[in-house]
Amino acid sequence: MTATTRLWCEYALLPDGLAEHATIDIVDGRIDAIEVGTPRHPDGHRRSGLTIPGAANAHSHAFHRALRHRSQLGRGSFWTWREQMYAIAAALDPDTYHRLARAVFAEMVLAGYTTVGEFHYVHHTPGGRPYADPNAMADALTEAAADTGIRLTLLDTVYLHGGLGGDGYLPLSDRQRRFGDRSIDAWAERVSALPVDERRRVGAAIHSIRAVDPDAIAVVAGWAARRGAPLHAHVSEQPAENEQCLVTHGCTPVELLARHGAFDAAFTAVHATHLTERDITLLGEAGATVGLCPTTERDLGDGVGPARRLADAGVVLAIGSDSHAVIEPLEEARAIELDERLVRGERGCFTAADLFAATTAGHAALGWDDVGAIAVGQRADLVTMALDSPRTAGCSADSLVEAVVFAATSADVTHVMIDGRDIVEFGQHDRIDVAAELAAAIAEVVE
Amino acid sequence: MTATTRLWCEYALLPDGLAEHATIDIVDGRIDAIEVGTPRHPDGHRRSGLTIPGAANAHSHAFHRALRHRSQLGRGSFWTWREQMYAIAAALDPDTYHRLARAVFAEMVLAGYTTVGEFHYVHHTPGGRPYADPNAMADALTEAAADTGIRLTLLDTVYLHGGLGGDGYLPLSDRQRRFGDRSIDAWAERVSALPVDERRRVGAAIHSIRAVDPDAIAVVAGWAARRGAPLHAHVSEQPAENEQCLVTHGCTPVELLARHGAFDAAFTAVHATHLTERDITLLGEAGATVGLCPTTERDLGDGVGPARRLADAGVVLAIGSDSHAVIEPLEEARAIELDERLVRGERGCFTAADLFAATTAGHAALGWDDVGAIAVGQRADLVTMALDSPRTAGCSADSLVEAVVFAATSADVTHVMIDGRDIVEFGQHDRIDVAAELAAAIAEVVE
Repeated sequence: MTATTRLWCEYALLPDGLAEHATIDIVDGRIDAIEVGTPRHPDGHRRSGLTIPGAANAHSHAFHRALRHRSQLGRGSFWTWREQMYAIAAALDPDTYHRLARAVFAEMVLAGYTTVGEFHYVHHTPGGRPYADPNAMADALTEAAADTGIRLTLLDTVYLHGGLGGDGYLPLSDRQRRFGDRSIDAWAERVSALPVDERRRVGAAIHSIRAVDPDAIAVVAGWAARRGAPLHAHVSEQPAENEQCLVTHGCTPVELLARHGAFDAAFTAVHATHLTERDITLLGEAGATVGLCPTTERDLGDGVGPARRLADAGVVLAIGSDSHAVIEPLEEARAIELDERLVRGERGCFTAADLFAATTAGHAALGWDDVGAIAVGQRADLVTMALDSPRTAGCSADSLVEAVVFAATSADVTHVMIDGRDIVEFGQHDRIDVAAELAAAIAEVVE
Repeated sequence: MTATTRLWCEYALLPDGLAEHATIDIVDGRIDAIEVGTPRHPDGHRRSGLTIPGAANAHSHAFHRALRHRSQLGRGSFWTWREQMYAIAAALDPDTYHRLARAVFAEMVLAGYTTVGEFHYVHHTPGGRPYADPNAMADALTEAAADTGIRLTLLDTVYLHGGLGGDGYLPLSDRQRRFGDRSIDAWAERVSALPVDERRRVGAAIHSIRAVDPDAIAVVAGWAARRGAPLHAHVSEQPAENEQCLVTHGCTPVELLARHGAFDAAFTAVHATHLTERDITLLGEAGATVGLCPTTERDLGDGVGPARRLADAGVVLAIGSDSHAVIEPLEEARAIELDERLVRGERGCFTAADLFAATTAGHAALGWDDVGAIAVGQRADLVTMALDSPRTAGCSADSLVEAVVFAATSADVTHVMIDGRDIVEFGQHDRIDVAAELAAAIAEVVE
């Protein structure tokens, strides 16, 4: 038996632009037909406002959400922040991580994210010994995503070394031990056992060139390429990483990754803040994606990445909320443009359409080619934004896409549908009390 | 007869820090007593969440709100944006401006602003002739503020010239003509006729050194100093202004203003983005305030101002929403820190308490010395933020001030009291349908 739903949208953002009065028929979770300019259908569920494709969160570490408040105390840098982050990681077990990730993924859904790429490296017990089920933590994340309705790509992360020092790779510290598999082969064996289904895919991640040596880069890149799985890596978030890479390997992180086969897979460089012109060219030639995380990059003082130059070189731009300093897809999107304006002193470096495209590009970068557009045949991931809030009111049809991308927030999300299923209605998750679960789950893991 | 109200706040931000279970007694619009750590009073109105002092919007051009959507179309710079802004200014009359400002001021109240400094320069008819009542536009703004409950300082702005060219000051353009009084004496005569009361004060503003010559600077500075009225000026928002000033006057805008007496008044430099070290020292020695407008400065590609160096020099930092690209006091506050992090690569340049202080510093800079703190004797301007939204949930008492300043938005404002009067309850303005009035008022003035 087929499940059919008809939506009637006041405005909808289609691949070729804004449409008024769009009727969208959804059959078995996919868009079956779109008709524009129709008077209201009596059997269509009305969606007032602007309906846009669901956003993809290309880069998440779910447990960082517990740092949102406490990490703002005191002074420091990326590196002192990292110590606070390790303390939270140390407190997780499969049960607490399930509850925390469930609340965080539900916050993402409320904000309009319909797919998340979870860059997952808290694999083992705090001492580094595998759990009885070596994928217990991955399963906790998978269950959390299923609970909330969000689509998951588990980016299972290789993390073998504690950093790069003057003499090469350092051993894992006590705090890092649970991130590491015994070897790259042990990583591959564990990850190959993870099942894939219609709602959860598995990709590979290289934590960074600080944590993964060239031989291991080659193994994980080969693993991803053979399976057609996405491959992600943190790249050049901080200048210190570039300096360490230059000392040890005589090249940049992008060059090192390229040299050892990362571009054989569908590759996403996360952050990519401090790049050379040659790095930008290499990423463009590879058809790579860059996962920008502007609210995190502001929060951690990483700097402003070369977004416009990357796009000009042919790189696809996607967004991620990463540390979850905030979970606001449109704030990530507009920050790409606004931070570029601060650097260039020019407006309109990206159009609103470009910025919307960055909110959906992550679906493909996470291995979902049939998500991210309101078009026939695509999975029905639809987010409706109110145009009558104090933030969005006053926009006219010729610039309402601009109004939403530059001024709307998660508070303006009224409805979220994922795979044809209504998950959020009138700003409420259909089964989860998000704030209450966030409070309870975070209290379990903070000291 | 006295009017007495008792609030019982779950948390309140007092001058010496966070207090739990604060009972606040309000008599005739002022805080009469504060008791901390009391169990719930049966006769106290409960305020769940964090109650903070009302924010001051130190720099507003109300009509710019109509640009929020359309100004994001196309490319350009500050200077092309200014042409769009002039087109809106040309469409205003006392009636349309009353309706537009009323909606915009109400949006400010919903977001937690309780005082606004309106930097007002659309004085006359489009051709430049005064209205029958020469202060008709000022009165429209005053009435708008009174309608919404927000406290107003009308910063009546001197705007005599069309810019600075190679040969000195240029005449007003057609679009600028309505901004200009016949002479600086005509400005003084008109402004001196504006009445002052307990809810509306009058200050002076120098549009910029592009629009006001040195002799006129001296007159307006003397006017403000004699009356104890605040004096504001746009200063060094764009490098081009500095270059023009150097060519014509051989000094920076701050130096020019200092030389002609601006510091004799209580002075606020708005933006102050492109300063020399000497400018910073001068502003610090004068005990001046700088009105930072970070969301506008991002939007217009102005650049990142030297906020930390200004504070170190003794300058008071305040915030303004200026062009109203967004109206989010906490976004302004956190942007001060986040943009400084991008420049410095360091976190914690300002504490959360510093950033909160910037949200309230504008009250004094607008001439209201008894507003901006939850303390006995102060006017009762109290804003309550929800701690149980998806954005704020999960914070604990030791860092909830940080959670709110770094992650809360206008959507988390539940209650706003101004001068002891409840204006916003559960997120709704007590008399104005803000979104509907914004939509209607903006439609009247856009083409």
